[in-house]
Amino acid sequence: MTRLQQQLAFAIEIDKLKEVLRQTRLLTNERRENSAEHSWHIALLAILLAEYASEPVDVLHVVKMLLIHDLVEIDAGDTFAYSAEPRAEQALREGLAAQRIFGLLPADQQTEFLALWDEFEASLTAEARFANALDRFMPFLHNFHGNGGTWRLFDVRYEQVLERMDPVRTGSPMLWDVVQALLDRAVEQGLLPTPQTE
Amino acid sequence: MTRLQQQLAFAIEIDKLKEVLRQTRLLTNERRENSAEHSWHIALLAILLAEYASEPVDVLHVVKMLLIHDLVEIDAGDTFAYSAEPRAEQALREGLAAQRIFGLLPADQQTEFLALWDEFEASLTAEARFANALDRFMPFLHNFHGNGGTWRLFDVRYEQVLERMDPVRTGSPMLWDVVQALLDRAVEQGLLPTPQTE
Repeated sequence: MTRLQQQLAFAIEIDKLKEVLRQTRLLTNERRENSAEHSWHIALLAILLAEYASEPVDVLHVVKMLLIHDLVEIDAGDTFAYSAEPRAEQALREGLAAQRIFGLLPADQQTEFLALWDEFEASLTAEARFANALDRFMPFLHNFHGNGGTWRLFDVRYEQVLERMDPVRTGSPMLWDVVQALLDRAVEQGLLPTPQTE
Repeated sequence: MTRLQQQLAFAIEIDKLKEVLRQTRLLTNERRENSAEHSWHIALLAILLAEYASEPVDVLHVVKMLLIHDLVEIDAGDTFAYSAEPRAEQALREGLAAQRIFGLLPADQQTEFLALWDEFEASLTAEARFANALDRFMPFLHNFHGNGGTWRLFDVRYEQVLERMDPVRTGSPMLWDVVQALLDRAVEQGLLPTPQTE
């Protein structure tokens, strides 16, 4: 295959991400969200909210990570945010998926895309921390504005949400303030149970 | 409203793009594609295929245009590629939509996003030409690899597809070569009628 043929095979393969369903529902509650449209939403958020990253970020780099961060789900499926599955098993499935899916690309792009995906997962750079913050923040808004969404569907505890949102705290202090304010309101409105006192 | 509240209102409003259906179907033929996941797909294509732009392009700028180019459809709906509606009527509806939707944003971002959308529509810069090429190219691949897709569903003529693909010719000569080769094969395979001789 030529370089371009490899790239087009990849372009066609990734259409499948549109059929990977997340637990999160659209704000109209019409149906579950898929991972392709979720990726669009948070890539656009990176442009919209870049000013709130903890540190100055290369926005294109953040956007690249967000556009590809869920592609492994084509093989590995979406793992629910509050899943009890051991993280090591999920990581194994996703690693194999990354090898196959990014393996469709020419060698230089395979290396680039794998590195972007690893960077997002490791969350050690300013760009990855901000990308992870957005990946947690938008589903939080969906749940808050969607009458509790998956929190109520799956009896999620306040403490679980707080832990899940930790990347927002490190990636974007301003968005973390929003999360904290909305968490209080979510408890008041009965969308989340009250925090358990120690 | 504070600046951040305006931005979050916009982030929530654009969730509706996930419910705007295009005529194009997924490659599995499972269902019609929506405009949010389409935007994700071609934004990723801009990163994947940037080397094939007619002229060197600022990739972030191309990606920004592609992520927002369909937002007006939230109010104006998707216009089918081979629609007979006068272009002026569509433009009027979309202009009003742009005013309302980008009007949710703080003034500086409203100006930026409106300018990006205008630039995409006018297609006069290298970035806009490449963005428009991708916006035409991917649905072409969907139709070719999806057993004729909307070409067969709506009895589209060969000459209509050729005209519709003209932005690919100007935006990306390499992708235009692909279009020409696949058009020949589409005719051979009966996915498109034979060209009408003058």
